[in-house]
Amino acid sequence: MTDDEAALSESAQPVAPGSGRVEAFSDGVFAIAITLLVLEVKVPEVEGGHGLTTALLHQWPSYVAYAVSFATIGIMWINHHAIFDRVRLVDRGLLYRNMFLLGSVSFLPFPTAVLARYLRDSDNARAAAVAYGATMVVVGLAFTLIWQHLLRRPALRKPHVTEAGVRRALRRSGVGPFVYLVATGVAAIAPIAALAIYGLIAGYFAFTRHRS
Amino acid sequence: MTDDEAALSESAQPVAPGSGRVEAFSDGVFAIAITLLVLEVKVPEVEGGHGLTTALLHQWPSYVAYAVSFATIGIMWINHHAIFDRVRLVDRGLLYRNMFLLGSVSFLPFPTAVLARYLRDSDNARAAAVAYGATMVVVGLAFTLIWQHLLRRPALRKPHVTEAGVRRALRRSGVGPFVYLVATGVAAIAPIAALAIYGLIAGYFAFTRHRS
Amino acid sequence: MTDDEAALSESAQPVAPGSGRVEAFSDGVFAIAITLLVLEVKVPEVEGGHGLTTALLHQWPSYVAYAVSFATIGIMWINHHAIFDRVRLVDRGLLYRNMFLLGSVSFLPFPTAVLARYLRDSDNARAAAVAYGATMVVVGLAFTLIWQHLLRRPALRKPHVTEAGVRRALRRSGVGPFVYLVATGVAAIAPIAALAIYGLIAGYFAFTRHRS
Amino acid sequence: MTDDEAALSESAQPVAPGSGRVEAFSDGVFAIAITLLVLEVKVPEVEGGHGLTTALLHQWPSYVAYAVSFATIGIMWINHHAIFDRVRLVDRGLLYRNMFLLGSVSFLPFPTAVLARYLRDSDNARAAAVAYGATMVVVGLAFTLIWQHLLRRPALRKPHVTEAGVRRALRRSGVGPFVYLVATGVAAIAPIAALAIYGLIAGYFAFTRHRS
Repeated sequence: MTDDEAALSESAQPVAPGSGRVEAFSDGVFAIAITLLVLEVKVPEVEGGHGLTTALLHQWPSYVAYAVSFATIGIMWINHHAIFDRVRLVDRGLLYRNMFLLGSVSFLPFPTAVLARYLRDSDNARAAAVAYGATMVVVGLAFTLIWQHLLRRPALRKPHVTEAGVRRALRRSGVGPFVYLVATGVAAIAPIAALAIYGLIAGYFAFTRHRS
Repeated sequence: MTDDEAALSESAQPVAPGSGRVEAFSDGVFAIAITLLVLEVKVPEVEGGHGLTTALLHQWPSYVAYAVSFATIGIMWINHHAIFDRVRLVDRGLLYRNMFLLGSVSFLPFPTAVLARYLRDSDNARAAAVAYGATMVVVGLAFTLIWQHLLRRPALRKPHVTEAGVRRALRRSGVGPFVYLVATGVAAIAPIAALAIYGLIAGYFAFTRHRS
Repeated sequence: MTDDEAALSESAQPVAPGSGRVEAFSDGVFAIAITLLVLEVKVPEVEGGHGLTTALLHQWPSYVAYAVSFATIGIMWINHHAIFDRVRLVDRGLLYRNMFLLGSVSFLPFPTAVLARYLRDSDNARAAAVAYGATMVVVGLAFTLIWQHLLRRPALRKPHVTEAGVRRALRRSGVGPFVYLVATGVAAIAPIAALAIYGLIAGYFAFTRHRS
Repeated sequence: MTDDEAALSESAQPVAPGSGRVEAFSDGVFAIAITLLVLEVKVPEVEGGHGLTTALLHQWPSYVAYAVSFATIGIMWINHHAIFDRVRLVDRGLLYRNMFLLGSVSFLPFPTAVLARYLRDSDNARAAAVAYGATMVVVGLAFTLIWQHLLRRPALRKPHVTEAGVRRALRRSGVGPFVYLVATGVAAIAPIAALAIYGLIAGYFAFTRHRS
């Protein structure tokens, strides 16, 4: 067997990890990112007196930020699954777009921690809420990039997946970055309202995503 | 193919990730939450002298809290498995109830850390033990919500699962929030006794859950 | 169908998660515990001057402790796999012994961090090295408890697994706690020598475990 | 059955966990290491004034280090998959070389955190960038060790994998340590340029690795 033949036989190998393995890896990253959120909730330091109850209640932004980010990553995990349910093959372009998505989802514990830390600090709450929203815009764009790629590469899709279906999913995926952009604008004025909107967006996606 | 037909063919897709994938994701979250507990056990800071042995022994509440929470999450993982052993299909309602359960289980490292930090502080031990118990009540309620949903939706259950069986599981699942509520009441008076009760509850569930 | 019949049909359910799922959960806990070890290696704080190189070299105990614990958990994972390779059924006793094992393995990042922090502190290095060894004795005992259970319950074993084989594995599993006990004794006198022994033990188990 | 026969029947057991299980464990470690990177990005402490925006922008090295390490571990995961795609059997040598690789990959959050912390500190940036590059050299060598082992042990490879193919993969795997060594040299002079090179290396491997 010549070197060329060997190269040929090697090229019969898939150019990227199989769809199942990419999905399992992605599931792992989602599960870890969602569980790391709790590390953002800090044990309050109380010196003397019966102050722990007050201190625990006082840091309600931590609990709200935890809940909103948990719900959001949960919804994203479901959306991610909806994508790979339609994928038959993973090419390099899909692989790297997926890595970009995972990188932005894994980053979420950081803006969540920033928001939890500064939501009660009237001077800095705006910056914290904007940072949170901006990260969400990036995550949303990552989803859009993936759907765009699937629209352009029919060979990656499972047989039953129609172009019209992908086109609708792509349009719907554009809603995410757009509403997060608007919410980020609200965050620059009213950070607590923005946090409420972030929660509502997760709720909205939870209850509408399966309609087409 | 019209847009409507495409929608139709799409709707043949499951409305939620398959039961197997939800279970694998949940297993991941349980495994991570249980392993993150150790981050709550802090390396003591000792300045000069041979104080490390004393300091290590002194923080026994950390070790007890670690053990109790580890056992509790372990039992919850087993109970969670007992649920999905009976599930054939996951609908949106089950998916979100399960997300709520995972969100409350993932939160446990926080009250565990609070308890470990304040159990020896006589002023704040009560608040810490109450916070721990209150979280457990929420986790217990999440289990009840799931069994309730399975009772109302026979289509989600595997064929061999009877309504009477689910009804019994639902009743049994109500024991959890109830005893944790009582333990939380005890915590408001005697926090160390409450910690012992939290441990006993895990032991109780470990040894009774399979009877009906 | 009467309530009793329902109970009967339910009891046809396995009394514990299947062997495959317990193994997957255990693998997850091992993988997370081994990866969390790096959180013990702290970024040194250097104020002014070109001190970072020195500071990084100065904390060599962190790197050694990381390497020894990584190797040790890795070997334990392999040994754990050797157990479940012989298991056909998981009963409650095996399930809880396995949980005890996982709880002690997940705890290892803590004594590793203690050792890394205090190995260069001549006053406290002994206590740190003893704490590390003592944890290892517990982990070793957990393995012995599992083999003991498999010896007493032939029904849990795969058909090809002989009693003589389990008996030998049980004997061999007793070596671990014993040598760790001796090493812990050394640690009370010469902590750095003890760390070297902990590393050697991992190496010894790596190269002998498959002989019988 | 004599003791010897038992030993014989036992030796029919694989000498190491199956290739699938080693791969799943490795995937878990990669997924956790890549997700732990975010813990390196610290919430800035701002006292009074509207300083959060500035503080968030000021710590850009954290975000760049996060992105570069995320991309690098992602590429390594893909390369790791390319290895195990060619592996039929795991022997002890492969198992321990793989453990060495996992241990060095899991270590990456540490040099990433060092780099993020000190890249803007002109006195210490060089040491930080050198530490980062040196770790990468070790990771690269771990890959080379694995390919070398696969070259020497044809029995471990899948039937379609040719010696010429492994030889080419081995040669290609040597590029990694070499370019990281050069980059580490650059780091000793121009740390920010070195970070850019680390990013470029990840990009280079992303776009070339599938050619032979």
